[in-house]
Amino acid sequence: MADQGDEDLDIIQKGLTFSDNQTPYIHKIGAPPKPDLLKEFKTTLKETFFPDDPLRSFKDQPKSRKIILSLQAIFPILEWGRSYNIKKFRGDLIAGLTIASLCIPQDIGYSSLAHLKPQYGLYSSFVPPLVYAFMGSSRDIAIGPVAVVSLLLGTLVEREFDPNTQPDEYLRLIFTATFFAGITQATLGVLRLGFLIDFLSHAAVVGFMSGAAITIALQQLKGFLGISSKHFTKETDVISVMKSIFKSAHHGWNWQTIVIGASFLVFLLVAKYIGKKNKKLFWVPAIAPLISVILSTFFVYITHANNDGVAIVGKIDKRINPPSLNKIYFSGEHLLKGFRIGIEAGMIALTEAVAIGRTFASMKDYQVDGNKEMVALGTMNVVGSMTSCYIATGSFSRSAVNYMAGCQTMVSNIVMSMVVLLTVKFLTPLFEYTPNAILSSIIISAVIALIDIDAAILIWKIDKFDFIACIGAFLGVVFKSVEAGLLVAVAISFAKILLQVTRPRTALLGKIPMTSVYRNIEQYPEASKISGVVIVRVDSAVYFSNSNYIKERILRWLSEEDENLKATYQPKIQFLIVELSPVSDIDTSGIHAFEELYRSLKKRDVQLVLANPCQQVLDKLYASGFPDLIGENKIFLTVADAIHTCSPKLNNNV
Amino acid sequence: MADQGDEDLDIIQKGLTFSDNQTPYIHKIGAPPKPDLLKEFKTTLKETFFPDDPLRSFKDQPKSRKIILSLQAIFPILEWGRSYNIKKFRGDLIAGLTIASLCIPQDIGYSSLAHLKPQYGLYSSFVPPLVYAFMGSSRDIAIGPVAVVSLLLGTLVEREFDPNTQPDEYLRLIFTATFFAGITQATLGVLRLGFLIDFLSHAAVVGFMSGAAITIALQQLKGFLGISSKHFTKETDVISVMKSIFKSAHHGWNWQTIVIGASFLVFLLVAKYIGKKNKKLFWVPAIAPLISVILSTFFVYITHANNDGVAIVGKIDKRINPPSLNKIYFSGEHLLKGFRIGIEAGMIALTEAVAIGRTFASMKDYQVDGNKEMVALGTMNVVGSMTSCYIATGSFSRSAVNYMAGCQTMVSNIVMSMVVLLTVKFLTPLFEYTPNAILSSIIISAVIALIDIDAAILIWKIDKFDFIACIGAFLGVVFKSVEAGLLVAVAISFAKILLQVTRPRTALLGKIPMTSVYRNIEQYPEASKISGVVIVRVDSAVYFSNSNYIKERILRWLSEEDENLKATYQPKIQFLIVELSPVSDIDTSGIHAFEELYRSLKKRDVQLVLANPCQQVLDKLYASGFPDLIGENKIFLTVADAIHTCSPKLNNNV
Repeated sequence: MADQGDEDLDIIQKGLTFSDNQTPYIHKIGAPPKPDLLKEFKTTLKETFFPDDPLRSFKDQPKSRKIILSLQAIFPILEWGRSYNIKKFRGDLIAGLTIASLCIPQDIGYSSLAHLKPQYGLYSSFVPPLVYAFMGSSRDIAIGPVAVVSLLLGTLVEREFDPNTQPDEYLRLIFTATFFAGITQATLGVLRLGFLIDFLSHAAVVGFMSGAAITIALQQLKGFLGISSKHFTKETDVISVMKSIFKSAHHGWNWQTIVIGASFLVFLLVAKYIGKKNKKLFWVPAIAPLISVILSTFFVYITHANNDGVAIVGKIDKRINPPSLNKIYFSGEHLLKGFRIGIEAGMIALTEAVAIGRTFASMKDYQVDGNKEMVALGTMNVVGSMTSCYIATGSFSRSAVNYMAGCQTMVSNIVMSMVVLLTVKFLTPLFEYTPNAILSSIIISAVIALIDIDAAILIWKIDKFDFIACIGAFLGVVFKSVEAGLLVAVAISFAKILLQVTRPRTALLGKIPMTSVYRNIEQYPEASKISGVVIVRVDSAVYFSNSNYIKERILRWLSEEDENLKATYQPKIQFLIVELSPVSDIDTSGIHAFEELYRSLKKRDVQLVLANPCQQVLDKLYASGFPDLIGENKIFLTVADAIHTCSPKLNNNV
Repeated sequence: MADQGDEDLDIIQKGLTFSDNQTPYIHKIGAPPKPDLLKEFKTTLKETFFPDDPLRSFKDQPKSRKIILSLQAIFPILEWGRSYNIKKFRGDLIAGLTIASLCIPQDIGYSSLAHLKPQYGLYSSFVPPLVYAFMGSSRDIAIGPVAVVSLLLGTLVEREFDPNTQPDEYLRLIFTATFFAGITQATLGVLRLGFLIDFLSHAAVVGFMSGAAITIALQQLKGFLGISSKHFTKETDVISVMKSIFKSAHHGWNWQTIVIGASFLVFLLVAKYIGKKNKKLFWVPAIAPLISVILSTFFVYITHANNDGVAIVGKIDKRINPPSLNKIYFSGEHLLKGFRIGIEAGMIALTEAVAIGRTFASMKDYQVDGNKEMVALGTMNVVGSMTSCYIATGSFSRSAVNYMAGCQTMVSNIVMSMVVLLTVKFLTPLFEYTPNAILSSIIISAVIALIDIDAAILIWKIDKFDFIACIGAFLGVVFKSVEAGLLVAVAISFAKILLQVTRPRTALLGKIPMTSVYRNIEQYPEASKISGVVIVRVDSAVYFSNSNYIKERILRWLSEEDENLKATYQPKIQFLIVELSPVSDIDTSGIHAFEELYRSLKKRDVQLVLANPCQQVLDKLYASGFPDLIGENKIFLTVADAIHTCSPKLNNNV
């Protein structure tokens, strides 16, 4: 080992005479200073749980200031509220009124998705937005019930209790689930586990949402065709829904209902189209639902169509958010059921809200702290569960309208919730004669936007594996159930991660002409190999899950090269340079793999050389005494330096 | 966008006047050719399931040759057998005899670990090694029953049936488990899922083995102190074992047993020590067990110590491997139990065998095909389960002896199994008076070698996280059960993988003096930042699991730098260069993150520049139209090129 080391040193000396600016690096890659264990541990912890460095602003501040800062951290309104002015309020007022007009009909419709009376949808658009307005850090999100969560909650709770025969138990379980959904969300935020929702990949969400949209639209056919729910399936998958629709055909669909529903659906879609074509007219689709509700209600009222079997909403309770804390199951078997359902629905609601928050934040370039968001959303749902609300979250459609209507702060949500409050108090009688068909049309026209074909196409273009996840989620939701879709999506996403860590890429490098840069010869065909040297780049951290593969793959590169050389009678390989730039970390299994690699190479008298190990890798290599094994002077800053030293003859023509 | 692009082009032109050898790369990073989807898919599939390219030798061979090759692939003996000669046989004969002398006493002892009669241990050293000899690709591994698997199998099956009261059912379940262990192993191999066992990291195995060794040693105290098994606990954790040992104290330990056991244990340990000190005397510890068996048996025989309560092995069935196919449960609930136990024990057996195979293969530098190995091991256990054998695998201790005794091929295993055959046929009467205490001493002295403290220390030195996995597995085995230990180990290993993919490292780069190389300024303090530019390196593939973190982390680097500059009244940042060398892949979520990053930067009028994206990343960037967004001329081969173009004033002093 030693004498070999010396002989290398000579080579280096020779090398230096040609390019003396090499000296700095060769000793630069020396034994690193012992890493401070505690510090290292702290950084890892920090980066894992506090990547956004939330306490940065607290640094060296007086105590009083710190208190204010922490209050502001919990209630951002204290921060932005101080710079609030009448100009901002104008924006918020208009936006608030617009989303209110959109949310009222949607709320009534969505609550039917959750098998709840209309008022609960309205309740959920009153309390939660208020709570969020004080705690949330997003400026554009519009809070309230949303289609997907309503559907999910409805189907899950329906399995436990029948909303028609056991309305009270059903309602209690809804509140229980809402409570635990809030607890789950807040806990994730407090424990800084926000990153967990990142495991639901964008692709999966796209597929999931499209699937859910179709499922919801199918559910609406019930109200749309005027089928009484006792003839309608409890399943949500396309096949059973279609079956029960055709089975119910001979019970007779209600033609009046269909006419009303269809005509207004057309109206809504036209309005949507106008809004899309001309962004200035965004308010057309925004108020269209309310208009169609008013018109259709008036129509039914004068024609008494409800006597001809046109189902109507009926009387709505005028009370404002009655307390429901006593209704929550805090004991017994139902507690567990509510807990399970709450976690599931809560996670979905979270994903949707955070996705919206991030989107608009990046459009206006402000930061939303994911974990803080979760605390806000969680608190609002906990409070909601005690005031007769079911799970609320950020709504895609309303947030977009809110943004386009020029909202400035969460005040637009406060405006909205006030309008909802007044509606519950004074305007509910107006909705008595509103035909359910209208609500179905409104829901259908709303969820259609969730079917994002362009996104799916883009995903296909960019990443086939993501596309599989996307389609998997979609088919799962449409043909089995919302849960199945989720499960498929998550499973595929994890499979992808495992594949990544089990089979990392490796590449053969060559020298790009007229430079000292070495790159993948497949990517840069003009790159030329160096005779007598094989340069391999490893494209991932070397961990137990891939160390053996990497070792064997590198050996295969070598033997393949050897065969080529034999075929063309060229000098045999003397050096194997492993480019470690992409290797961000290594573990004991990785070190062992490299030791085995070194031994195998020794047998074939090929020398192992390492290029550009990063700090962490270098530390661990030294901790394991690997450099003494292969010789310290076998580790270089760049491949170019390694080549300089390995094949001195090369130096002339550089 | 467009005009901005042009303005950049001018900058590039200016850049070029200074260093005209830049031209090649700037157009080199152009739109890549459309990737061939099918080809890509095929490569991924190949690298995942056929990383060792097993069919390479089959390429363009005549049909007849292909048949021979495939036969040789299944039965490697056909390949090495042809070059077999008398010289090799001498080595194999000596090695075979040595491991035989070691395995016979071990087999008898290990079968007691599995609560089986002695002959089953011997059976398992006869058939499986023969089968493996024809199919296995390792040359040094010694096949037979091993301590850990015997213990695991014993404890698992004991939970279903009591070996004393229900011996037949117990035996049948053992064979069933063995059968399904074999099926599992073979299936993994055939489906090319060998990489799955890599998920049990080296660190975890070290901890697991040490823990198992201690558990086994504790179990031996029963035989060692002469405690009758009805007073002994069925649990394997240290606490319950210690309890029942002290509880049994007043039932009286058998002093004769203790004396015999202790004295021979000392003898065995001394022999071990000699063997360790002087490698030439490796045969001393190898034959010591047999000698102590003979001596102690003779001693008991003449002193009739068995009448004074010294437990002895007793009569051993002379029949050779009676068929047991009819004993396997192919139906009923026991089928499932056997299946579950088989999978568990089979995986452990596999891990041990493959680890041994790899170790010796890398010492003699020959390839063992992991998947082929599994097929061989699986077949041998399936055949074994039909010939009254229980799970056999590669033994650490015997393989080491085999290697040191100079074995050449698997013939040494054939020799061993022949010796075992003769033993069963003619010598079993000799073992009638062998005291169990000796077997306990032999097992203790054998498993002590599995406690690898040096390895644990090394793991601690190299990687703290691995150490946690190691200790976790160890404590799990010692204080709960073998399964618990496994579970802990695997769980921690997965947590590590998830951490890696959720929180990748990022680093701020600086220019190393007198070079055009840019490196982490934390690792190379002498590296200098470039004014007006921030260079960030991302150290992992950008996936949905980390895309948001990476985006926000990069923005944080930027704002931190901005603050520093403001503090020192330096020009503000105009360019953010993201070094993508370590980014081996990106998915749709990653692309979205970069788009959001670009938008945020635009708001702060900082220009986004990318350096050295690899083929896969470049393809996906172009597929998503990202280059058009930031401008194609914003993607460079190296950071140096990017700097050349971004800050022309820099070119003068390069």
